[in-house]
Amino acid sequence: MKFLRYGEVGQEKPGLLDDDGTIRDLSGVLTGVLTGDLQGEALGKLGDLHDLDLQALPVVGGSPRLGPPVAGTGKFICIGLNYADHAAESGLAVPPEPVIFMKATSAICGPNDPIVIPRGSTKTDWEVELAVVIGKTAKYVSEAEAMDHVAGFCVTNDVSERAFQTERQGQWTKGKSCDNFGQIGPWLVTPDEIADPQQLGMWLTVNGETMQDGSTSTMVYGVAFLIHYLSQFMSLHPGDVISTGTPPGVGLGQKPPRYLKPGDVVELGIGGLGAQRQIVIAD
Amino acid sequence: MKFLRYGEVGQEKPGLLDDDGTIRDLSGVLTGVLTGDLQGEALGKLGDLHDLDLQALPVVGGSPRLGPPVAGTGKFICIGLNYADHAAESGLAVPPEPVIFMKATSAICGPNDPIVIPRGSTKTDWEVELAVVIGKTAKYVSEAEAMDHVAGFCVTNDVSERAFQTERQGQWTKGKSCDNFGQIGPWLVTPDEIADPQQLGMWLTVNGETMQDGSTSTMVYGVAFLIHYLSQFMSLHPGDVISTGTPPGVGLGQKPPRYLKPGDVVELGIGGLGAQRQIVIAD
Repeated sequence: MKFLRYGEVGQEKPGLLDDDGTIRDLSGVLTGVLTGDLQGEALGKLGDLHDLDLQALPVVGGSPRLGPPVAGTGKFICIGLNYADHAAESGLAVPPEPVIFMKATSAICGPNDPIVIPRGSTKTDWEVELAVVIGKTAKYVSEAEAMDHVAGFCVTNDVSERAFQTERQGQWTKGKSCDNFGQIGPWLVTPDEIADPQQLGMWLTVNGETMQDGSTSTMVYGVAFLIHYLSQFMSLHPGDVISTGTPPGVGLGQKPPRYLKPGDVVELGIGGLGAQRQIVIAD
Repeated sequence: MKFLRYGEVGQEKPGLLDDDGTIRDLSGVLTGVLTGDLQGEALGKLGDLHDLDLQALPVVGGSPRLGPPVAGTGKFICIGLNYADHAAESGLAVPPEPVIFMKATSAICGPNDPIVIPRGSTKTDWEVELAVVIGKTAKYVSEAEAMDHVAGFCVTNDVSERAFQTERQGQWTKGKSCDNFGQIGPWLVTPDEIADPQQLGMWLTVNGETMQDGSTSTMVYGVAFLIHYLSQFMSLHPGDVISTGTPPGVGLGQKPPRYLKPGDVVELGIGGLGAQRQIVIAD
């Protein structure tokens, strides 16, 4: 199933996309069968909705804005250099174990919300990524158990300011956490719809020109291992988002490097998970 | 005023500490005068409570557990190497601009909750820090305006696993985000009670032995500058916590280095902000 949240910023309602591509409202179901606005423990119970008569749910007309498909995200964890070719284009070696960093949860926005270039930025860049949303708390889980803790998968744009990230002292956080630097969605797709998360095509274009064209098959550390690995360091809670790294083709890796400017249009998607479209604006 | 949250984990109620050291319950006031459980926009309105008749508030008997004094923290931002002497003991130069990193908000716990040594840890360490809690959203604020966005100050223990932090690839997140690695409290002290946040004594003992004995006067980048600086990179929201770095005396800096083991007792405090006491246990 494809879950989503629609409506204006901060006023989103839960919904889903049916097989005809129609948005249907889930507000009544989520306060009845489950609790929450696609957040918290409800994320671990989405399977309970499989027998739902989708045709009986109210149709949402028009083309509402989509918000991030999950609310109440406590952690937005990212994996660095998790595609061998991307590490190479960044001039860095593949790490012997995963590189973790955090994006601020305040960077999270809807899949088609603008990319906002922060003041002082000269190197705002794109990164299409497969994101995993946690559905059940995970701590010290084995790789074999890991996928039981997944609520679903999403597309993420891990927007990054390269100068802030690497030329302004220390840790990457500074270049990863700006407002509107974390488009998530359009949908949270449940695991039953994704036969193999390590066999998904992924792409990103800027003004129609293909910049990234990869596959999750070239990930260094796969989804199950990452959940296992992260859970050795911290509890993963429902709603936490793990963005699993980007394939080659980021702006930093172009020769010469190429960064976003106001007016650019970025489109990106992953097979089975839908697509995003963002206009770039200046703050 | 000294705000706090008391009760079992996840069931905390808002309260305050009166001038006699008695805990009084604020539940009625916070649902009446303000909304929220010492979180969100209520944090920007704590000044509205100054005329409250504290003696009329219900007394909380016994010695309840204290939770973190703020709920709903979206970001737990830390400043690295922000005391010149601590940078020296770490063998690192004072950075030319602040080093930012993130702790997971899932690491946050009450001021007297145990320090939990994660599995596989060999180098769990302590760091007494002055934390600043944001009360009003801050974006691109000047240093002169910065303090208007502060709800109050707290003591924090920025517990750190040094091997996870620096010997396990990349970014510090891994060694900073373990469960129970972020004791906050006992109180959120409003700015009117703190004449100068850059003139506060701070201390930490392990099993009664003084390990850290410093002052916020030796911070490299002060509180107002840090809020200004961070707000250039991301919006700071009510409830966000900024932990401003630690003075010398961490375990890593001892000769030889000394780390925590189960049964150790860590006590720490900052002038005017109260004290914490933690027992160290293994996970």
